[in-house]
Amino acid sequence: MNALTRRHVLAGAAAAGAATALTPLLNTPIRAAAPTAGKQVSGWYRYKVGSFEITVVTDGANVNPLADTYVANAPKDKVNDAIAASYLPKDKASQSYTPIVVNTGTKLVAIDTGLGLGLYAQSKGAVGQYHANLAAAGIDRNAIDTVIISHFHGDHINGLLDADNKLAFSKAEVMVPAPEWKYWMDEGNMSKAAGTPLEGNFKNVRRVFGAFGNKVTQYEGGKELVPGIKSLATPGHTPGHTSHIVASGSDQVMVQADVTAAMAFLFVRNPDWHLMFDMDKPLAVQSRRKLYDQMAADKMLVQGFHFRFPGAGYIEKDGNGYRLVPIAWNPVL
Amino acid sequence: MNALTRRHVLAGAAAAGAATALTPLLNTPIRAAAPTAGKQVSGWYRYKVGSFEITVVTDGANVNPLADTYVANAPKDKVNDAIAASYLPKDKASQSYTPIVVNTGTKLVAIDTGLGLGLYAQSKGAVGQYHANLAAAGIDRNAIDTVIISHFHGDHINGLLDADNKLAFSKAEVMVPAPEWKYWMDEGNMSKAAGTPLEGNFKNVRRVFGAFGNKVTQYEGGKELVPGIKSLATPGHTPGHTSHIVASGSDQVMVQADVTAAMAFLFVRNPDWHLMFDMDKPLAVQSRRKLYDQMAADKMLVQGFHFRFPGAGYIEKDGNGYRLVPIAWNPVL
Repeated sequence: MNALTRRHVLAGAAAAGAATALTPLLNTPIRAAAPTAGKQVSGWYRYKVGSFEITVVTDGANVNPLADTYVANAPKDKVNDAIAASYLPKDKASQSYTPIVVNTGTKLVAIDTGLGLGLYAQSKGAVGQYHANLAAAGIDRNAIDTVIISHFHGDHINGLLDADNKLAFSKAEVMVPAPEWKYWMDEGNMSKAAGTPLEGNFKNVRRVFGAFGNKVTQYEGGKELVPGIKSLATPGHTPGHTSHIVASGSDQVMVQADVTAAMAFLFVRNPDWHLMFDMDKPLAVQSRRKLYDQMAADKMLVQGFHFRFPGAGYIEKDGNGYRLVPIAWNPVL
Repeated sequence: MNALTRRHVLAGAAAAGAATALTPLLNTPIRAAAPTAGKQVSGWYRYKVGSFEITVVTDGANVNPLADTYVANAPKDKVNDAIAASYLPKDKASQSYTPIVVNTGTKLVAIDTGLGLGLYAQSKGAVGQYHANLAAAGIDRNAIDTVIISHFHGDHINGLLDADNKLAFSKAEVMVPAPEWKYWMDEGNMSKAAGTPLEGNFKNVRRVFGAFGNKVTQYEGGKELVPGIKSLATPGHTPGHTSHIVASGSDQVMVQADVTAAMAFLFVRNPDWHLMFDMDKPLAVQSRRKLYDQMAADKMLVQGFHFRFPGAGYIEKDGNGYRLVPIAWNPVL
């Protein structure tokens, strides 16, 4: 039934019901518009960096209650003021998740992978959209050559697995930061985390990588991982947290992962704030300020995993903090 | 041929060619990634205003040389500085076009219609995307009940016609601002415009509306056009230029049309600047400041035809001008 037909049926049904009980109201014709669509557009967006093609693929967004300690070194009312200043609802953590895929012409490379299919149903489709949006963008996950992981939080690694808990990217080499592997795979560190909020993360890391036999390639900071994509150590959020510079010709983008995480806009504006999920909070601040000072000076494009989709923009200095100017959406590639 | 197959064929062809002439290079395996997609996502985005569903439909974006008189009362180097501050290329007019459709539950209403199908081929797909994106958004143009026009510039009215130069919205009532109709349909005004840049606009207005027998409904400012959509006179850009307030429950959005036009970001930041296309420039400034002061005070959502897609955001005061804070993209409706 197309929209027009259905609308006439609905209008007819309404009129029929009304004719029995409400005949006087029929002086005003009763009708209905085409039914609402109730559906969002496919969550991907494409832009070029030199000859490379970047496809931004949203994994979705969710809204959770705002923890009292969401920002460890700022009172909740100040955090709420900053949330309201971004026109988002107070007392809520409104977070979005945005991995990317880079086609360099010689390699098809995914950087991070989203929260995973398991959370799709649980969140009623709010998150875990990555694999569906990847397909909508025309990207066959079995054509991915390399998956580069920035760090080992679940929203970055869970999408490595498919519905059968196998590697979702059947032909891909999975590259992970060596210091991240060292920290999370250390049994002593896991023992120390027993009973703390980190325990679940240690278990999840083992679940995800164990599912494909821990077959990963470890990499250090400051290395070219594939031609045109270099790693840059930006620790603090996690011990081995790593960003990536994607460069082609004279064009480049800093793929910052979680240099600002969660509600990233809060930490762009207030870079000294300590996000509860930043494991070494002073080091996270230091990495953030160092990177953003450089980005602002160089006017270099930044792609943020937790920036709102499509997640690319320019960092400017503003007072004691920074401001993100989103890219101008281009309706043609 | 799927992406994976084609990639293997391409890699095979490259290897075969190389084997003849460049055998020593084969020490490094020659391969290609999946082919680049070369395609942008469908240009629509959806959000709710109360129970209403707004579908933003891009008509595309184009880049033209920057006229010396683009801003009539500011030197070109200042204009270029403001363009660069928005990370767009200097000496270029980078403009985008973003009509919307509102489903109120009882009416399906298009507000403005884009540059028209004629420009699609001419611009190589850069603009004239509206009708294709409308279909991609699942909206049948024959289900549109009402088309509301803000003013009579070609980028707002040309999409009223289909490829056969008939009304593209077969069942729609077309509503136009009465003062706009009066001005452009006046033969004396047209005679006076002969030989000026406005002459083409007078002719285009007659071409478009004449194609469907001038069957329009004229409306005044301050009126409810359909339940939930009111007109607001915001003259200056053109004599009868009109904005629209879409309201459902306690939620509302100001559909501002061309209160700031062309590269709208320039005139948000510099509201006193005179865009070459603003017909009564001081009046345009007055309408702009009046509306934006109210929008900033009310923290009311604004949808701008020439804001970058998806074109919705909040206006803040900033120095002697304003700043647009784009909405946070929501990957679920």
